[in-house]
This record gives sequence, C-alpha cells and structure tokens, in this order.
Amino acid sequence: MSPHPPEPPAVGDRRQRLWRIIFLSDTTAGRLFDAVLLVLVAASVLVVALESVAELQPRWGLTMARAEWVFTILFTLEYVARLAVVRRRWRYATSFFGFVDLVSILPSYLGIFFADTHYLLILRVFRLLRVFRVFKLAEHVTEGAVLLSALRASRNKITVFLVSVLAVVTVEGTFIYILESEHNPRFSNIPQSIYWAVVTLTTVGYGDITPVTVPGKMMATVIMLTGFSIIAVPTGVVTAELGREMARVRRRDVRCASCGWDEHDARALHCQHCGARLP
Amino acid sequence: MSPHPPEPPAVGDRRQRLWRIIFLSDTTAGRLFDAVLLVLVAASVLVVALESVAELQPRWGLTMARAEWVFTILFTLEYVARLAVVRRRWRYATSFFGFVDLVSILPSYLGIFFADTHYLLILRVFRLLRVFRVFKLAEHVTEGAVLLSALRASRNKITVFLVSVLAVVTVEGTFIYILESEHNPRFSNIPQSIYWAVVTLTTVGYGDITPVTVPGKMMATVIMLTGFSIIAVPTGVVTAELGREMARVRRRDVRCASCGWDEHDARALHCQHCGARLP
Amino acid sequence: MSPHPPEPPAVGDRRQRLWRIIFLSDTTAGRLFDAVLLVLVAASVLVVALESVAELQPRWGLTMARAEWVFTILFTLEYVARLAVVRRRWRYATSFFGFVDLVSILPSYLGIFFADTHYLLILRVFRLLRVFRVFKLAEHVTEGAVLLSALRASRNKITVFLVSVLAVVTVEGTFIYILESEHNPRFSNIPQSIYWAVVTLTTVGYGDITPVTVPGKMMATVIMLTGFSIIAVPTGVVTAELGREMARVRRRDVRCASCGWDEHDARALHCQHCGARLP
Amino acid sequence: MSPHPPEPPAVGDRRQRLWRIIFLSDTTAGRLFDAVLLVLVAASVLVVALESVAELQPRWGLTMARAEWVFTILFTLEYVARLAVVRRRWRYATSFFGFVDLVSILPSYLGIFFADTHYLLILRVFRLLRVFRVFKLAEHVTEGAVLLSALRASRNKITVFLVSVLAVVTVEGTFIYILESEHNPRFSNIPQSIYWAVVTLTTVGYGDITPVTVPGKMMATVIMLTGFSIIAVPTGVVTAELGREMARVRRRDVRCASCGWDEHDARALHCQHCGARLP
Repeated sequence: MSPHPPEPPAVGDRRQRLWRIIFLSDTTAGRLFDAVLLVLVAASVLVVALESVAELQPRWGLTMARAEWVFTILFTLEYVARLAVVRRRWRYATSFFGFVDLVSILPSYLGIFFADTHYLLILRVFRLLRVFRVFKLAEHVTEGAVLLSALRASRNKITVFLVSVLAVVTVEGTFIYILESEHNPRFSNIPQSIYWAVVTLTTVGYGDITPVTVPGKMMATVIMLTGFSIIAVPTGVVTAELGREMARVRRRDVRCASCGWDEHDARALHCQHCGARLP
Repeated sequence: MSPHPPEPPAVGDRRQRLWRIIFLSDTTAGRLFDAVLLVLVAASVLVVALESVAELQPRWGLTMARAEWVFTILFTLEYVARLAVVRRRWRYATSFFGFVDLVSILPSYLGIFFADTHYLLILRVFRLLRVFRVFKLAEHVTEGAVLLSALRASRNKITVFLVSVLAVVTVEGTFIYILESEHNPRFSNIPQSIYWAVVTLTTVGYGDITPVTVPGKMMATVIMLTGFSIIAVPTGVVTAELGREMARVRRRDVRCASCGWDEHDARALHCQHCGARLP
Repeated sequence: MSPHPPEPPAVGDRRQRLWRIIFLSDTTAGRLFDAVLLVLVAASVLVVALESVAELQPRWGLTMARAEWVFTILFTLEYVARLAVVRRRWRYATSFFGFVDLVSILPSYLGIFFADTHYLLILRVFRLLRVFRVFKLAEHVTEGAVLLSALRASRNKITVFLVSVLAVVTVEGTFIYILESEHNPRFSNIPQSIYWAVVTLTTVGYGDITPVTVPGKMMATVIMLTGFSIIAVPTGVVTAELGREMARVRRRDVRCASCGWDEHDARALHCQHCGARLP
Repeated sequence: MSPHPPEPPAVGDRRQRLWRIIFLSDTTAGRLFDAVLLVLVAASVLVVALESVAELQPRWGLTMARAEWVFTILFTLEYVARLAVVRRRWRYATSFFGFVDLVSILPSYLGIFFADTHYLLILRVFRLLRVFRVFKLAEHVTEGAVLLSALRASRNKITVFLVSVLAVVTVEGTFIYILESEHNPRFSNIPQSIYWAVVTLTTVGYGDITPVTVPGKMMATVIMLTGFSIIAVPTGVVTAELGREMARVRRRDVRCASCGWDEHDARALHCQHCGARLP
C-alpha cells in the first residue's frame, strides 16, 4: 500500500490529463471521479453482501445479479482506463491496488465459464475486496494522510507489542489450562485456552468460554487487571505519534538568523524571541 | 447544533432581558432558568421512560400521565417564550434545538386527536428527545465548551477513521463468512458476519455469535489483536486535540499594541507577527 | 476525601509524636504503622468476603468469626487512637475517613445486641468499607498523589462528559426500544433498553440482551462505532491532565533575570538560552 | 528481567566471540542466531500447544513427540553454550532467563525417569515458558527498548492504580452482593460478586454473571460509567511516559565541552548546567 500514486505518463502526453483525473483529486473532474467511484463501491459492496442473505434471494435475486453485472462492467472499464494511462502497466497490475482491482472483477467473469459450485460462491465474495479502495481515496484527504502517517510511524512499535502480547497470552492460556482443564470441558486443550486468553485480554469477553473453578477465576481476574495496562500501550504509541505528526503540520521549520530560535508558529513573520524578521 | 445562541432582539427592545435569561446563563436569573429546566427535563425523561414499564402501569399509570401533561404544558410555554424573544422566529423553529423543542411536545397534543394506536405509542417516545437539551446547557459550561471544541476539531479525522473501520469490518466479516458459514448457522450471511466483526472489533463481544471452527477462531484472534491497535486511533485523535485545546487556554492572552495580533506563546517576548516588544 | 491529614495537636503536646506516626509516613515508625495497617485491612477484607461463601461455613465459620473479632478490636483501638491525637475530634469523626473508620467497626458490636437477622448480615458487609483506607495510604505515596491530582483536575470535564453520555444512552435506548420492543421481549421497556445501551456503549457487552431484528442490529452497529470515539474522551482528558501534572514535577519554575526565559529543567543551574546564572 | 545481558568473559578470551553471537545481536552471526532461535521457539511452542489437542493425538502424536525431543536437545545445547560463555555461571543460572531456559527443557528429561502421570502432563506444559524468550529478543530491538523503558517508568503509578482498582471492585462487589444475592444465585457470595465487578469494570463483560434486579442493574450502570473514566488512567500513564521516552530520543545529543553535561533541550544554545556556549 504505497502512499504515492503510480507514475504519470510523460509530459505532453494526451493521457496526462486522464491520469490526473483518475489518480489524483486536485481538479474538479478528479474529485467527481472519486465521489462517483466511492458511491459505486459502496453500492456494489452492499449488493454482494445482500446476495448472501437467503431470505432475499426469491424476490430480489435476479435484480441483484443484474446490478452486480452493471457494477462489474463499470469496474472493468475503470481497470482498463487505469492500465491505459499509467506509464508502467505491469508495475501497476502487480501493485496492491492493481491486484485488488483485478480480483474484485474476476469472479463475475469466471462465473460464466464454470458451473455454480461452492468454490465459485466463495470466489464471488472476493468482490467485497473492492471496499479496500476506500483506503486509496483516504490518502487523497489530508486528515487520512495524517492518520496513515501516524500509523506508519507506529508500525514497528506495534509489531513488537503484538509479538509480546502473543507471548503473554500463550503463558496465560497455559496456566488457565493447568487450572481448569480437569473441571471444565471448555478448556480441554491449550490452543482453545490461548483463544480464551486473547478474548479476555482484549476485553472482548464473548462469554462462550469462562472459568468455573476458584483458581481459574482468580487467574482470570489477574489477566483482566493486567490487560487494563497492556491495552494502554498501543493507545500510547498512536497518541504520541499522532501528536508529533499534527505538531509537524502546524510548526514552521525555520531558524532565526540572529538568535537561533527554531520553533515558530506556522504563521509567524518575526522571531518570537528576539523580534528579528524571519527569512 | 450551532455553538452560538440565536440572534437577540434589537437593542432597547424589552424582550432583550428575557432573551438573556432564556438563551444565556451569565445572569442569576439565567442560571436559575437553566437549573429549573435541567430538573424538568430529567424528571420528564424519567416519567416517559417509566411509562413504558408494563409492571408500573396498573398502580402509577394515571399519575404518570398527569405528570406528563404538566411537563408538556411547561415545555409548551417555554417553546412559545423562546419563539417570542428571538429576532428571526422561522430560523429558530427550523434550527436543531427548535426542532427538538417542538418534536418533544407535539406527541402529547396529537394524542388528543388520534386514538391510542401503536404509532402514537412510538410517537410518545420522541418526548425523550428532550434529553438533547442537556447539550444546549453543556455549551454554557467552560468544561463542556472545551470538550465540544476538541470533538469538533477531531470530527474530520474521526469520520475518515470510521469509514476505514467500515471497510475493515466488511473484509473481516467476509473472511469469517467464508470460514464459518458452512459449519455455523450464526454466520449464515455476510451482513450478519459483518455485524459480528463490528461486535468483536469494538471489543463489545456480546457472545451471541461466536466462531466454532479452528480457522474461524484464528481469524477472530487476528481481528481482536488488530482491534487493539485500531481502537487506539480515535483516542489518539481526541487526546491530541484536547491537549491542543487545553494549551490554547494556557497561552498568553496578550494583544500586540502595534499590530493587534493576539495569539502568542506563553513565553513570547516579542510579537511573532510584527516583532514589536509585547507589554 | 480531603487530600490533607487532619490538624495535629499543638506544638509541644506529647501527642504530637503519636499524631505523626498515625497520620503521616515520614518516619520509620509511621511507615511501619502504615504497613501493618495495610496488611490488617487486606486480611480483614479477605475474611469478611470469605464469610459469605456458604461452602466454607461448616469448617471455617468459627475461625473466621474469631478472626473478625480480633480485627474489630484492633481497628477499634486504632479509631480511639486517631480520635485521641487529633486536635478537633468532632471534625475528624465527621470526615470521610472518620466515617469509614466508624462504619467498618460498628456492625460487629451491633451484632451483640441484635439477633442474627438478615439486616445485620447486610450491615456486616459494611466492614468491607475498610478497603477504602487504601486511598488514605495512597495519598502518602508520591505516585498516588500525582494520579489523584490529575483525577481531581479532570473531575469537572468528566462530570460534563458523563452527563452527556447519559443523554446519549437515553436517546439510543429509546430508538432501540422503538425498533426491537415488538419482536424481542428483552427490550420490553425503555429503562431496560437504556441499560442495554450503556452495556453496549461502554463495550462491556454482556450479551444477556442483544438485538434480533435487522434494524436493531444496524442501530447497535452505529452505537458501537460511535462508542469507539466517545470512549476516547475520558482517556484524552486524563492523559492531558496527567501529562501536565507530570511535567510540573520535572520543571523548575524559575524565570531568568537577564532574558526572561522561564522554562528550565529541574536540574538547570544556568539559563539554557542566554547562559546567565539562574537565581 | 534485567535489561542488560550478563557479563562477557575477560577480553582476549576465545569465548568472547561466542558470547557476542549468543547474547548480543550487533553482528551478522548474532542476528542469525537470534532469528533461528525465534523460529525454534515458535515451532516448539506450537508443538507443545498442539500436543494437548486430543483429536490430533492418534495421527500426529508420535511425530509431535519426536519433534519435541529434537527441540529439547537443541535447547539443551543452547543452555549449555550460554552457561559456557558467561563469566559468572551461577549468576546466569539463577537469573530470570536462566531459570526459564532450564525449566523449559527439564520436563522432557523428567519424563524418562517417571511414569506418565498427570503431574508430568502439567510439568510438560512448562515447556511453553520458552515463549518468554521473545522478551529477551525484544530488548535487542530499539522499538522494544523504548516500550519496555516506558513500561518500567509507569510501573509505580500502575501498581498504585491496580491497588486502588482492587479496593474499588471490592466495594462495588459488596454492594452488588447486597442488592442481588437474595434474587440471583449467581451473586451467592462476595468473592464471586467481586469477580463480576472486575469483569464489568475492565469492560470484558463475559455475561456469565449478570444482574437481574432493577437496583442491581442501576448499580451495574454506575460501575460501567465510572469504569469508562478509570480505564483512562493506565492509558494516560503509559502515553505520558511513552511521549517522554520518545522525546528523549529526539533531544539534542551534545556534550558540554567545559562541564560534560550531556542532556540538553533540542533548542539549547548554552549548557544548562555550567552556562558555557554549546558547540
């Protein structure tokens, strides 16, 4: 998921204008293109989701199948247009969004050649991947860019955090297995007990698996209370990175020539410390 | 929900004083008006809520119906008073709070003309919208103003975030549908599976729908662990905005004598706009 | 819960030393007194809690009752000692902690005069209030003082927040009542529906009450997603206040005489901007 | 869990190089050693976890037992190698990670001498403690070091916080016991009621124990809403410490030529300790 749009065609190329509309949103036509695409994605996702509801099939099945074909043709046209205007076609086709674009239209076409098997049904569901395009659009918006930038900066810390959490739930799941497995069929093996530890530590708490023995409940209490503090880590990481990212936008990165002060408001004309004119 | 009260009548108008009492709370009478209103809103909301409890009807039904009429008459007087003192009546009547004021008294009057049908019952419930007036009062309080201001500043980022979350739960719901639908009637269609993904990602975890297959549980584990990090985003946004908002209050509230710039760092010695020495 | 200990006896009074041991913890004897008290509180709380377990009564009932009498006598001696060394007895007796001290020993004595009725059983439970003494000790610790100070600073904002949340859950509970009440006996009245809205918004999600209709589930999805952002508010408030509180401890609040710079590290001897010696 | 590796052998010792590979990761061989170890730990943890699944035993039991022996031998070699290269063997053997290393290989050897009793089964599970080695590796990574450092700084505040939470849930559990115990067998004793209060306050919300009376539900509502604010405390602590830790990395890493002070603000022009001009 590269944050940058693919390379534009050479300057002077007639496709330059089309590329701008399709990949950027700094023109009226570009913004309109994005808005229409967003509506189409939302509508097609809704139709694919509703097609899976058995109760709706008798009455709306045909209508939904037809709507789906309309969406498929429109997205095919869009995919062809994208391939036509980028400089390096193969590179786009093998990029994350190029892959999503293809995978979300293919199932409809494969349905013509194959009989309606179960695997095709699953394949169809991949059309829902279209929803990932929302992230492509999100990058156009400044707010989305700030959020993505903060999440990218947090990535390494959160990976280390998630690996540590995996270690913690393994140990916790093992201990609850030792305490409960003899008295509670829900904790019959370790993977299941680790699953319970994840459900508890993340405070999801389905309640499908719960401890019944007194030591098991005490262990659960310890997990829940430590989970309180553990859940604070990713929040702290994202908050710190987001604060830094937001401060960067507001601050003018200029050093005063006479006193060396380098922290100024984005709108400052004079150094706030010595009063000298800023460059 | 505009943060500003509606326009007052022209200066010299006798209604100016009444307007101040009703819409502001910078006088003793105004604060008393607000306090009485808050108690009335709380009491009327309680009565409407308790009227829906079937067990209380035989003994308290009549008393509650009478109390409801008292509240309706008081709120009607208040609505008429508000309309009477604002400069542009139509504008107030069509504003958010004007609409809430009307909708919360109408059901009682409609009940006279229509028979006691089911729709009327639902209509009655709209009287509970009176509770929204709390927000009108919240804006009077400094603390409320800071919170609202921070939430308003976070609005765009949180919208982008919620749209992204919708995309994420759609994909997650689809995958769990592929993994579970054959073995678990609870995941019989995609919308239901997306509902489960929302319940899981937000850590609500009712437990009415839970995965039963091993791949389904592994998928759930992944969703729960990533949800850990995703939930950190709105917290980070609100914390950063709130910190900024609270810092603004602490900032040096001094106006530059030569250029009029009035937003300076607490430590600034010179105006950051024109460079003049600050007083 | 005043953050300050009660007034000491006049200087020269022999009770001055005892007062220091009992109410402060800046001497070895004072710290020992606190440690012993903490262990006694923990042990007595454990005994009262275990006395309620019917399975333990036949074998351990008598032992626990005896232990309870030992604790009661020790806490009575402590209460008398506290009253003896403070300057204004009535003021201490009517303070929060004076009240807790009394209420937690009274039930045992009342049990002598009254027969063992159900009300006495409940009264006994009040001995568990001894656990509140932990907060009295928490104030002695620097870390506890910083946390309490941040929570005190957040108090007003969090009150405004909780009142707003009450308004939100009332409206949400009402809407889910309209959508579900006809099809789902769990949403049979509005207070119950508001209870469900609280369970959902706070992400507790017991699962004892869940929506069954499609519009009900859509409403639940909206509540869960908005709850995501709402839960961020108290976290943001506490984080911002805590950061401010922690920064206050580290920063030296001194203004440089030659350049006016007033933000220095706690260990700085010279102004970090102009190099002049700090006062 | 000391953040520092154990003491290396004396300079010039041939074991110096091996020590560097095993305990540090600043060489290619050291990083390779860490990577291989991480894969081995993950694989062995997976095998131990899967061995507890009864359904897999008939077909995969023998294969898993053999794989487990391979892992045991490899980890034994590693343990011997670690003991061989450190300067003080006893000190390493009694350290946290030395203990984990031993405890995770012992069960396999004990299995030879003892019959396959239930206790041995539990003993085997201790092999899962190998997963703790992940933390040993985490310290090698900068990101992990920052997180651990922030958590270490938060330790005291979070301990005070957890003790306070224990006091709060004790009181809350007691009150719900008074309100519910007569009508709801789920709240039959105080420890169970405290367990429920923990499940509710941490927003885990299994739903295996829920209040059924109206006062009980009102109490639950109060607990959930206050839990909203309480959960904000550890997040605030970790965020504040993490922000400080991350700021430390950004600080100007310059040493004053005249006094040697090396901790300066990024904007400092003069040494804040002796006042000399910084380079």
